[in-house]
Amino acid sequence: MYVLAPTRPRRTRGTPIGKHQVGIVGASGYGGAELLRLLANHPEMDVAVVAANRHAGQPVAERFPNLQGFGDFAPIDVDRIASLDMVFLATPHEAAFELVPQLRAAGTPVVDLSAAYRTPVDSFVTWHGVEHPDPDHAPAVYGLTEWTRQAVASATVVANPGCYPTATLLGMLPLVELLAPGSVVVDAKSGTSGAGRAAADHLHHPHLDGSIVAYGAPAHRHTGEIEAGLEQLGRDLGPVSFTPHLLPVARGLLATVHAELEDGVEAGAVQDALVASYAHEQFVTVLDPGTFPHTKAVSGSNGCQVSAVVDPRTNRVVITSVIDNLGKGAAGQALQNANVMFGLSEGLGLSSIGVHP
Amino acid sequence: MYVLAPTRPRRTRGTPIGKHQVGIVGASGYGGAELLRLLANHPEMDVAVVAANRHAGQPVAERFPNLQGFGDFAPIDVDRIASLDMVFLATPHEAAFELVPQLRAAGTPVVDLSAAYRTPVDSFVTWHGVEHPDPDHAPAVYGLTEWTRQAVASATVVANPGCYPTATLLGMLPLVELLAPGSVVVDAKSGTSGAGRAAADHLHHPHLDGSIVAYGAPAHRHTGEIEAGLEQLGRDLGPVSFTPHLLPVARGLLATVHAELEDGVEAGAVQDALVASYAHEQFVTVLDPGTFPHTKAVSGSNGCQVSAVVDPRTNRVVITSVIDNLGKGAAGQALQNANVMFGLSEGLGLSSIGVHP
Amino acid sequence: MYVLAPTRPRRTRGTPIGKHQVGIVGASGYGGAELLRLLANHPEMDVAVVAANRHAGQPVAERFPNLQGFGDFAPIDVDRIASLDMVFLATPHEAAFELVPQLRAAGTPVVDLSAAYRTPVDSFVTWHGVEHPDPDHAPAVYGLTEWTRQAVASATVVANPGCYPTATLLGMLPLVELLAPGSVVVDAKSGTSGAGRAAADHLHHPHLDGSIVAYGAPAHRHTGEIEAGLEQLGRDLGPVSFTPHLLPVARGLLATVHAELEDGVEAGAVQDALVASYAHEQFVTVLDPGTFPHTKAVSGSNGCQVSAVVDPRTNRVVITSVIDNLGKGAAGQALQNANVMFGLSEGLGLSSIGVHP
Amino acid sequence: MYVLAPTRPRRTRGTPIGKHQVGIVGASGYGGAELLRLLANHPEMDVAVVAANRHAGQPVAERFPNLQGFGDFAPIDVDRIASLDMVFLATPHEAAFELVPQLRAAGTPVVDLSAAYRTPVDSFVTWHGVEHPDPDHAPAVYGLTEWTRQAVASATVVANPGCYPTATLLGMLPLVELLAPGSVVVDAKSGTSGAGRAAADHLHHPHLDGSIVAYGAPAHRHTGEIEAGLEQLGRDLGPVSFTPHLLPVARGLLATVHAELEDGVEAGAVQDALVASYAHEQFVTVLDPGTFPHTKAVSGSNGCQVSAVVDPRTNRVVITSVIDNLGKGAAGQALQNANVMFGLSEGLGLSSIGVHP
Repeated sequence: MYVLAPTRPRRTRGTPIGKHQVGIVGASGYGGAELLRLLANHPEMDVAVVAANRHAGQPVAERFPNLQGFGDFAPIDVDRIASLDMVFLATPHEAAFELVPQLRAAGTPVVDLSAAYRTPVDSFVTWHGVEHPDPDHAPAVYGLTEWTRQAVASATVVANPGCYPTATLLGMLPLVELLAPGSVVVDAKSGTSGAGRAAADHLHHPHLDGSIVAYGAPAHRHTGEIEAGLEQLGRDLGPVSFTPHLLPVARGLLATVHAELEDGVEAGAVQDALVASYAHEQFVTVLDPGTFPHTKAVSGSNGCQVSAVVDPRTNRVVITSVIDNLGKGAAGQALQNANVMFGLSEGLGLSSIGVHP
Repeated sequence: MYVLAPTRPRRTRGTPIGKHQVGIVGASGYGGAELLRLLANHPEMDVAVVAANRHAGQPVAERFPNLQGFGDFAPIDVDRIASLDMVFLATPHEAAFELVPQLRAAGTPVVDLSAAYRTPVDSFVTWHGVEHPDPDHAPAVYGLTEWTRQAVASATVVANPGCYPTATLLGMLPLVELLAPGSVVVDAKSGTSGAGRAAADHLHHPHLDGSIVAYGAPAHRHTGEIEAGLEQLGRDLGPVSFTPHLLPVARGLLATVHAELEDGVEAGAVQDALVASYAHEQFVTVLDPGTFPHTKAVSGSNGCQVSAVVDPRTNRVVITSVIDNLGKGAAGQALQNANVMFGLSEGLGLSSIGVHP
Repeated sequence: MYVLAPTRPRRTRGTPIGKHQVGIVGASGYGGAELLRLLANHPEMDVAVVAANRHAGQPVAERFPNLQGFGDFAPIDVDRIASLDMVFLATPHEAAFELVPQLRAAGTPVVDLSAAYRTPVDSFVTWHGVEHPDPDHAPAVYGLTEWTRQAVASATVVANPGCYPTATLLGMLPLVELLAPGSVVVDAKSGTSGAGRAAADHLHHPHLDGSIVAYGAPAHRHTGEIEAGLEQLGRDLGPVSFTPHLLPVARGLLATVHAELEDGVEAGAVQDALVASYAHEQFVTVLDPGTFPHTKAVSGSNGCQVSAVVDPRTNRVVITSVIDNLGKGAAGQALQNANVMFGLSEGLGLSSIGVHP
Repeated sequence: MYVLAPTRPRRTRGTPIGKHQVGIVGASGYGGAELLRLLANHPEMDVAVVAANRHAGQPVAERFPNLQGFGDFAPIDVDRIASLDMVFLATPHEAAFELVPQLRAAGTPVVDLSAAYRTPVDSFVTWHGVEHPDPDHAPAVYGLTEWTRQAVASATVVANPGCYPTATLLGMLPLVELLAPGSVVVDAKSGTSGAGRAAADHLHHPHLDGSIVAYGAPAHRHTGEIEAGLEQLGRDLGPVSFTPHLLPVARGLLATVHAELEDGVEAGAVQDALVASYAHEQFVTVLDPGTFPHTKAVSGSNGCQVSAVVDPRTNRVVITSVIDNLGKGAAGQALQNANVMFGLSEGLGLSSIGVHP
């Protein structure tokens, strides 16, 4: 049985005594549950709050059979979570809009897994179709750790990237100078856990088992996040065509990026750029051209594997990038960011090695 | 686009002109949808009614993406269905209790896929925990075709067996004289379509994908149907221990039956009894001992494959019997029974060969 | 037990007496086995030969557990097969190069499922890297039935299309006038049966289960067949970028085609073109824009479902087209072609409705 | 890139400086690869040798795409591995028979994952059909940690239990006094990784995908190990009827044990016995009766979840016990034993929480 950490004063950064007390809000979803799984084995953080308003009072193990002994979901108590050393928000963005300002006011570090603060306000408005209620604070620091770790280290609020943008941007950012604007097609495939824990007609097991289906094109919200990420961390490559698919597996995400190369770019330059970006990264592995990454190679981990192959006939590059949508695509990266924010070793409690086979 | 058959007077048995007009009631469930799939290609039956009260007005293809062009579910119109040549009831037993008496009164042949009329009244009451509202007519003719085809041929109401009882009884009935009473353990595994089309927390795709779990033991309702089937068609072997499991596949059912042999029974007698029972059956195949049947070998078909192996150390036989839970375990057998009731070739519109791989 | 048809003189086209005697050569692969499954229930064809040189003498059921009672694979006897009413070649193209000339000389109709005669000689040489040994007879009539049925009807040798080209061309051909040359990206996903029956390290069950992986890019041989098909049946759209992926399912193929629209093309024109092409086709269903086809909706069938959605931001169309790689992508279409060649009803023994769920 | 530990003198138990140097022999199989995955993140052990004779020279990542950066498999160098602090043998038992005596002579601690030393010699001979070449040293200490940890702590050679025996014995051992001898039926289901990494006809992905099949009954070798384990750690319950099945998933193992209760045993006693045995165990969780464990709840972990339900009608108990066949069923338990042998915290580098969903 997992015993929640007791209430105690917030630990200031660098305090040598005791573990960091953290809370998970929105723990009844898959992102929150994965955080609980990872944090249960973290050597420097203790989970003090496991909150989920809609499921308050329900045993955690009833929704997540791997999480035995974690008691019941608690209702969200803002004062309580504001007193913690860090709060992970794994809620819909609507709840984040309520909680982030209060936690910011309290000075409580936040890793927000929702889309609330990931993109510039105009992008949010365009892709979500609603006003942004907190425009002065958007975007927050974007927590694509390998590309923003310095900003993450000093941030109070980190917007944790979406799953599709994480895989896509990790594959594309090293190459933005080599790609022709306006030519980017992202054909992405995700496991069904990306669609959340709530039972739904189209997520019914026999309905999906053994089947693959596209969805959401051409206006999936992650399109805007990918474009914003490219522009802010790399280069504006114009509108991106983004088409996601549901895979008949619980976990795993593959982004296959098709793009034209700028004139004169050679295949070697593509590989060199990937290797140069990630040679010293513990969570991103670059494969040799012609070797393609398996989604399950990073399942359950915070790893990302990237490969690129150039087609001289069409002058296109095909980038394949795999992550676990709940790992590097959600909870894993959130923990990676939290490690950075706490000044801990970035990989603490995380692995780059997936549970394969 | 599938065009429903027009309204016309009921065809009397043997009438040589025109196809039989049939209706599916409860077509919004998987059993009903599978009937629609099979009947769409049947050379002697036309589907005239596709009814489902709760989903009336919804396009069939919205629930079943394979069934394009079948229009919308209709509400149940008792007068209309009573005028048909045959009605397949794929509803819960509560609805069958309402409809069967009316259809019987109208003289309309019925294949009832629900549990309403499968077992003697006392068994129904014991295992369902409610009174039987139509005790004078229960049980109806039990449509385990290979074992009851003569009764089926002259029946007006046929109770189509449950999926677990079908696989279990087909494996056991040839052997009842060889098995020791009180020793029967049925460990069964079913695809998730057996749990129905309705979205539910425990049938959520990511929740089940890649996992197997037992459920329902020790009081699953099919226990009573298995015991009744043994007693009525074979021999009372005492209480059966029945444990079902959910498999992470949409279709397929395997019943593994463990039982002690009566004293002095030899392995050869087991195989001989199986072969003797099924040598002339088109839908049941007996495999050699040591060859075990694959569930997918009968997927999408009306086939059943059975194998038995004797363990001299424990004096037990292990019978493995596979069907498609929606095929021979539901819609396939219903159509097989309908063929018999209409005096058609028993295998019309059906196959024993599964869609493998 | 399936009894092979006896030897008798070849039936001339249109002969009213008796079923057509056909043979399957290369029956130990998945394409051949699927033909055997389909033909076993065909009302107008009898399988007289089930041949597979490398597996001659092995029981069919040992390789394909759904095919019980089909005896052993026979060695290839050219005289015997040349005497049949039709031969299905489901061999590698090397064997087709040996057999097709002999069968052509004997006047025996052939549906060749290999790549031997699908494309112009120069395309074959480019994409296979070997000389074409029979250049005067290549290409044969390309059996993409919906687009070539008149030529098929009078052909002696029909080259049955590959699985990826079938799904891709069925989705693209109605739209070729609307698409911008040089802009075509095909991101395709196939079940593992497309890789054949032979055990291999990278097709080992635990290795692939739950994983998706790209392969073969940028030089998969089907690229050439897609380009040739576009040029010959539609319009030369320049080099196509083709990237296939392995899905962790046995069956099912989805081609997601991304292409720019010619200037001024409206979304309505795309849908109109699809509907116009397929409104009267029994095996191709056009879905409404925004509804995406499920691979399993056509599993085990000869159906194809196509959908297209236009993205005004990028002026691209995304076409999604699903087939069963062993159905419309191989054996199903082969049988459809054979029906046409025999002058039978095109859909005989086939269904457009997949085994879903 | 994972850097192998340098050669240095063996660390004596309790030495406070440096990590333990360990080797994996037979690392090209799934058990060995899983050890590599677990050890890569272990805080107190360094992998110094990754050996596999048949695959020496092949990159580890070529066989296991999750294990990037681990270099090539090395050939087995007995002197080198004998100098290590511990050797994990993940080889077939034939290789263990060669290596264990040499390592024992060198005083090198061994965790042997093969069947070589698990059972008394007569049981080994009976179930493997060959002589035991090292009868004076068999059985070694049986490493079912929860039941033998004191013996493990002082052992030099530990025989790591098989996957089926682990799940079965963990479920049964608390209850042996309550079960009727001669009544035990074990119906077990395993993921395909239990069958090893080598490609094989019956383990071909499309062949198994979506299918379940029994195998090996009635003479699977693990039967003898289960019987020996019951007798040595619990109580001789007579011959056990053991029937394994292959599940269409890579990982996960469920043992469903059916047994009669001794006269007068009440349901409460069953639950009490389970809870009493495991209340203080970190890796074994007892669920409430009526809640059944999911295999995926322990996937990728060293956890085991057990549940039991009593059927008063048949006086039988149904015990369901799940593990990851590569975790608690192989590499996880091996590491747990190694932790105990080194005097480390038993759970170091391990988790009881599976990667679900």
